[in-house]
Amino acid sequence: MDNYQNQLDQTFSALADPTRRAIVARLAEGEASVGQLARPFAMALPSLMKHIRVLETGGLVETEKRGRVRTCRLKPAGMQSVETWLAEQRAIWGARLDRLEAYAMALEQATEKKAKRRTEAEAGKNVSTGKRKG
Amino acid sequence: MDNYQNQLDQTFSALADPTRRAIVARLAEGEASVGQLARPFAMALPSLMKHIRVLETGGLVETEKRGRVRTCRLKPAGMQSVETWLAEQRAIWGARLDRLEAYAMALEQATEKKAKRRTEAEAGKNVSTGKRKG
Repeated sequence: MDNYQNQLDQTFSALADPTRRAIVARLAEGEASVGQLARPFAMALPSLMKHIRVLETGGLVETEKRGRVRTCRLKPAGMQSVETWLAEQRAIWGARLDRLEAYAMALEQATEKKAKRRTEAEAGKNVSTGKRKG
Repeated sequence: MDNYQNQLDQTFSALADPTRRAIVARLAEGEASVGQLARPFAMALPSLMKHIRVLETGGLVETEKRGRVRTCRLKPAGMQSVETWLAEQRAIWGARLDRLEAYAMALEQATEKKAKRRTEAEAGKNVSTGKRKG
């Protein structure tokens, strides 16, 4: 459990930076070498490598050295762990909203019934008043 | 756009801590006062308030003071912004996987066709050989 929490810390932390999110978005389109990644970001290689290492620690990216070229690609498990955590909260939250909605509907129906009974009672009174007048 | 990126930075950063994620999970079940939140976390109020302030900055939680009690509740927009960002990456990535799958299927079909032609050609050769032998 602690390992899982630690990993989530690193993953969320890795995503808390616009350059790193842009790298993830670029790698979602397909793998790229560090050189290819550096170009659109107008960033020196050492700075870029620092970001890539943070993404690796966050479990979001994996790199592989082929000859002199280091290739980066997205690691599905990292994104998946964030999605799973969000889905868990959404499920708890959704269940609560469903209960609230059910409660609100029951309340509404009860109020409608009450209003209907009152209208009927009023109508009954008017009819008898009418009868008396006629 | 920069505001959006800044907000995402703050939101991801707020989620990069196990106590803050636990607070979010607790608030997913329903609003709670700061005192109620502090109990299960066995945390002094000032430390907890610091975490709550980070969650507020991250757009994940809103608080309201009623009399002497500060009530905290989840803010849907914060979770939504993270989910939207993830869904965007998933869409780019999914589209690429679809293209890769289509390419792999086309490749497989082409290989099968080639193998079939070769088998037919071999069979043809065998038939003619057989004829010659017979």
